[in-house]
Amino acid sequence: MIVAMQETATEEQIQQIIEHLVRMGFSVHRTTGVRQSILAAVGARIDFDTRNLEVLPGVQEVHRISAPYKLVGRTFRPEGTVVKFANGLAIGNAEVVVMAGPCSVESREQLFTVAQQIAQAGARVLRGGAFKPRSSPYSFQGLGLEGLKLLREAGDKFGMLVISEVMEISQIEMMLPYVDILQVGARNMQNFNLLRELGKVKKPVLLKRGIAATLEELLLSGEYIMAGGNYDVILCERGIRTFETYTRNTMDISAIPIVKKLSHLPMTADPSHGTGRRDKVAPMARASVAAGADALLIEVHHDPDKALSDGAQSLFPQQFAQLMGELRMIAPAVGRKMA
Amino acid sequence: MIVAMQETATEEQIQQIIEHLVRMGFSVHRTTGVRQSILAAVGARIDFDTRNLEVLPGVQEVHRISAPYKLVGRTFRPEGTVVKFANGLAIGNAEVVVMAGPCSVESREQLFTVAQQIAQAGARVLRGGAFKPRSSPYSFQGLGLEGLKLLREAGDKFGMLVISEVMEISQIEMMLPYVDILQVGARNMQNFNLLRELGKVKKPVLLKRGIAATLEELLLSGEYIMAGGNYDVILCERGIRTFETYTRNTMDISAIPIVKKLSHLPMTADPSHGTGRRDKVAPMARASVAAGADALLIEVHHDPDKALSDGAQSLFPQQFAQLMGELRMIAPAVGRKMA
Amino acid sequence: MIVAMQETATEEQIQQIIEHLVRMGFSVHRTTGVRQSILAAVGARIDFDTRNLEVLPGVQEVHRISAPYKLVGRTFRPEGTVVKFANGLAIGNAEVVVMAGPCSVESREQLFTVAQQIAQAGARVLRGGAFKPRSSPYSFQGLGLEGLKLLREAGDKFGMLVISEVMEISQIEMMLPYVDILQVGARNMQNFNLLRELGKVKKPVLLKRGIAATLEELLLSGEYIMAGGNYDVILCERGIRTFETYTRNTMDISAIPIVKKLSHLPMTADPSHGTGRRDKVAPMARASVAAGADALLIEVHHDPDKALSDGAQSLFPQQFAQLMGELRMIAPAVGRKMA
Amino acid sequence: MIVAMQETATEEQIQQIIEHLVRMGFSVHRTTGVRQSILAAVGARIDFDTRNLEVLPGVQEVHRISAPYKLVGRTFRPEGTVVKFANGLAIGNAEVVVMAGPCSVESREQLFTVAQQIAQAGARVLRGGAFKPRSSPYSFQGLGLEGLKLLREAGDKFGMLVISEVMEISQIEMMLPYVDILQVGARNMQNFNLLRELGKVKKPVLLKRGIAATLEELLLSGEYIMAGGNYDVILCERGIRTFETYTRNTMDISAIPIVKKLSHLPMTADPSHGTGRRDKVAPMARASVAAGADALLIEVHHDPDKALSDGAQSLFPQQFAQLMGELRMIAPAVGRKMA
Repeated sequence: MIVAMQETATEEQIQQIIEHLVRMGFSVHRTTGVRQSILAAVGARIDFDTRNLEVLPGVQEVHRISAPYKLVGRTFRPEGTVVKFANGLAIGNAEVVVMAGPCSVESREQLFTVAQQIAQAGARVLRGGAFKPRSSPYSFQGLGLEGLKLLREAGDKFGMLVISEVMEISQIEMMLPYVDILQVGARNMQNFNLLRELGKVKKPVLLKRGIAATLEELLLSGEYIMAGGNYDVILCERGIRTFETYTRNTMDISAIPIVKKLSHLPMTADPSHGTGRRDKVAPMARASVAAGADALLIEVHHDPDKALSDGAQSLFPQQFAQLMGELRMIAPAVGRKMA
Repeated sequence: MIVAMQETATEEQIQQIIEHLVRMGFSVHRTTGVRQSILAAVGARIDFDTRNLEVLPGVQEVHRISAPYKLVGRTFRPEGTVVKFANGLAIGNAEVVVMAGPCSVESREQLFTVAQQIAQAGARVLRGGAFKPRSSPYSFQGLGLEGLKLLREAGDKFGMLVISEVMEISQIEMMLPYVDILQVGARNMQNFNLLRELGKVKKPVLLKRGIAATLEELLLSGEYIMAGGNYDVILCERGIRTFETYTRNTMDISAIPIVKKLSHLPMTADPSHGTGRRDKVAPMARASVAAGADALLIEVHHDPDKALSDGAQSLFPQQFAQLMGELRMIAPAVGRKMA
Repeated sequence: MIVAMQETATEEQIQQIIEHLVRMGFSVHRTTGVRQSILAAVGARIDFDTRNLEVLPGVQEVHRISAPYKLVGRTFRPEGTVVKFANGLAIGNAEVVVMAGPCSVESREQLFTVAQQIAQAGARVLRGGAFKPRSSPYSFQGLGLEGLKLLREAGDKFGMLVISEVMEISQIEMMLPYVDILQVGARNMQNFNLLRELGKVKKPVLLKRGIAATLEELLLSGEYIMAGGNYDVILCERGIRTFETYTRNTMDISAIPIVKKLSHLPMTADPSHGTGRRDKVAPMARASVAAGADALLIEVHHDPDKALSDGAQSLFPQQFAQLMGELRMIAPAVGRKMA
Repeated sequence: MIVAMQETATEEQIQQIIEHLVRMGFSVHRTTGVRQSILAAVGARIDFDTRNLEVLPGVQEVHRISAPYKLVGRTFRPEGTVVKFANGLAIGNAEVVVMAGPCSVESREQLFTVAQQIAQAGARVLRGGAFKPRSSPYSFQGLGLEGLKLLREAGDKFGMLVISEVMEISQIEMMLPYVDILQVGARNMQNFNLLRELGKVKKPVLLKRGIAATLEELLLSGEYIMAGGNYDVILCERGIRTFETYTRNTMDISAIPIVKKLSHLPMTADPSHGTGRRDKVAPMARASVAAGADALLIEVHHDPDKALSDGAQSLFPQQFAQLMGELRMIAPAVGRKMA
């Protein structure tokens, strides 16, 4: 941590800051310049709230040097994390994985119809929501356990792994027998109690970026899970909130190369939530692979107009198949191929 | 709902949209203009996802007319909601209420020291966190039940009501005997399962705006609680995320008059989280009252440098007492006085 | 325009709004529903400020139906605009054009060194700034007319067209003999006096999106130029300001497919300014082409560490050449090839 | 400037960075820690682009220590700047000044009607736009010189100073005989050529914050003017762009106390543009004074429904008079009175 003192700071103020830092467990190196003094505080604590120094008398500004995370940083595992599954599939290596399926599991017929078509087109993981707490208290809320069982059955039948979203701690146990990847949604990215529990689980976790979360905060949430012992964390960009109103969110494609540089964890993209509009999903899916994404999450529905949730952002199966073809052409440009 | 068709829309496309709307339960009025056709869809559903129409062929744009909420709207209760407590205090009438206290309950000594000083200065509600899931997995996590008991004891001793934050459904039962108001933090503003449970509770709920939540979304979350039967909902502005980096959040003071116009619910402000810096708390507290806030939430700590959380945004007790004096001068300018 | 009246609006208020609209030149159709009245106002004016109605008594909300632009809309020219140049190059057809060069023209040696290398790698337009008003009053301000002459000479020598930024009206005349495309920077996107003058010019204009401009505002600025008679307008995404701080701007790749749908004008992307960091330029350039961009603007410098401006976002010539190879692999996935 | 090297940086990389810094004119102090090396670069240059270091091999992150401005910083003039006028009025002392008037000067009758009423209510400066380049090419564009003459005449007649907006360099000369303060609008906050010319003028300049400008950028634009020799700079908050859509802009009240701390320049607020809605102007004007604003800019029109621009955000004269009464009650709470 670097503390820059104001030009007008008195020697007494500087001494107080130094003592404060020492009391917090830091060792301090002081540089006295022509205009101001600069204190470099070195120590093991990474959870120090720098604002506590900023508001003290004589302090101009404070910069944290070490990133506030350890385990998710690229240095921890420079070669990169590859999350491996029993069926041989892996996320984070040279093969780009596509996870697809409906927003919500609505019925056996719906799920199996979609699952067959996406498997045939090249999806390797089946996605679908079993719990759907909605922003309106008057909407469809999901099939629950029944949805999980259908996902497992459809995944097994069509040769796909299964991913589904966990909304709260009490659902974890129930989900474990049915899913291969536990997904944490954007609204739960900073539900630290949930993250802590997922740190104890022996299955991979896909963690989505919150709509107002910086990339540093996304990484810190990943740290929460890894700190609990679960190192199979997959990160995901799904759009942030900006002033632009044409799309529900602004998908931050640059998050992909940035996270790949800062962290060793696989970085994926969800263009369905990232744009919220069917006609923008394919361009943004292509852009994600071109920018280096390790995997994609794409919503597909065989009859989106009748979907009980998020139909507007679901591709038709034919659109999905066409997109897969385009992705197969783009992947080699970044030295990869589609899984 | 208004659906504007593209100038190039065919008659067949227009008919399909009309049929689609009728199928969804709307009745449709069509206006055929020189440039384009406009469809007015009238019906009882308020949870319709307008994007489902936006992506259909021939549609130019869709506007929802009725607000997606009913119970929280000003028309539901034009005279305004006043949340009343057994000791005679009320939030939402001509008296502005100040809720104050430390970020976290750290110890009996800390809490009672702060409580005595703020009560003397005019605080009418004691605030304090018992559960503190933190953004870093390596930080202090709160005293839990012990903290709740201390809050109740201190509140009773110094004549203040008690407010504390509920983080998850499992904590509600435990908290009810000890608190007068249940607070929902910004990160949980869209935790719909939690909101649903709070709708069944017989105690007032203070709901904070999420850092990326629009005011419409805040109102819709209030609707969730009211829809469950709990009409004692209090809303709170506590800063939103913007591009400005000097403060942690940008406190949106304009949210106060806007919510007061759109809704009958009391609207309050939290300048401590809204700014994140002690030296900005007093100006923003004054601004909130000047803009019409019904109550304030202010963090106070007798030794902020040693606070286990958020010390940087906590006022010293003397600063708090001075602020109370300033607020007493401002309140009459908006036809009110301090409770 | 649609005006939804409040449920509590009186008949007198409704009549006043109708009269107000008629006075403004609209004809009005009224629908009286169970809950509220809705007024559809039809007329030729597209510059009406809807807020004037929003603040009138009894009005709930106002929605503009027709987009506030005419000439830039896709309906005006459904087949799309192709901007053609004397040497046969075109922007907006099946060939993706790359414009490259240094941020500023610094010297003949610098410019010719870069120009030769990028031309060889496949750039078809040479970019370079002659006027560089900088955010610090203490920085390099550009070579001016001398820079324009060097650009023309280098462009001719290496077979490239020339694009350079015009900062104010007084520079237009001076620039016309030397450039093939006049570029309007993000800060001038709403300099309406400048846009009006560019509407009279007989050369294509590349208009960059402002860092806080919505896509509707970008289109409206394009309208300004077209309204003056200059239909050769090219639009450009170059990053918007968001809460994320890792990159200077967040490049909004979704702007590419959105603008292509709303407008007939060619849509291009500037990943150098869009990210501000050399190591993010190539991923975002690839993403732009994958999302359907008609052209790219890329900064290249043979010795970026010594560049007088924006060296940090300039590619080395070898990096540029490698990127061109990658783009040649991606373009066919969207049915195109590199020009 | 502080350069933190990566943990994995080689000694050779560290040496290269040191040499790079020395070549740029900095002297460098190195601290070698257990985890990483930290370089403190000290020197006179304040316009250094830190990204140039960020992209070099081995660099983890770079922090600028000294603010990139000198003249506008609080240390330059700790007692604060008071801008004084010939008639005895001053901005920046214990008296809060209100500047009011119509958005645009539309006619003699309009201007004089408004001017008389606001002067009577306590406005000390008359505002009004003479040049109105509009976002739509089809709107009223202002009276120009005739408008300036009317402003001067009305100001003199009713005992008010005059402020009006300068849009481009060519207007400065024309405006000087008629105005007491030159206003720079939000869109021109980074029009550095214009700022440079205003640095040579002998009249005060009121500089508005751009809708996407950080406070640091606002201060740097103030620096531009001061660097030219004009020290009478007044800063102004007028709303920033955020994700919230209910108001056109989100007025950042916290900018007032922040700028007052960082700079010695007077800080003012424009609640009319800050909110864009008449019914929010009074609450935000009160909030601004409560937060410490030195002056306010408020739009008033005697017949806003017929205003040629921005009628929706103009107060009626009676509303303005009532607001002045409220402000007189609030000012003493911050140790001030209304001028």
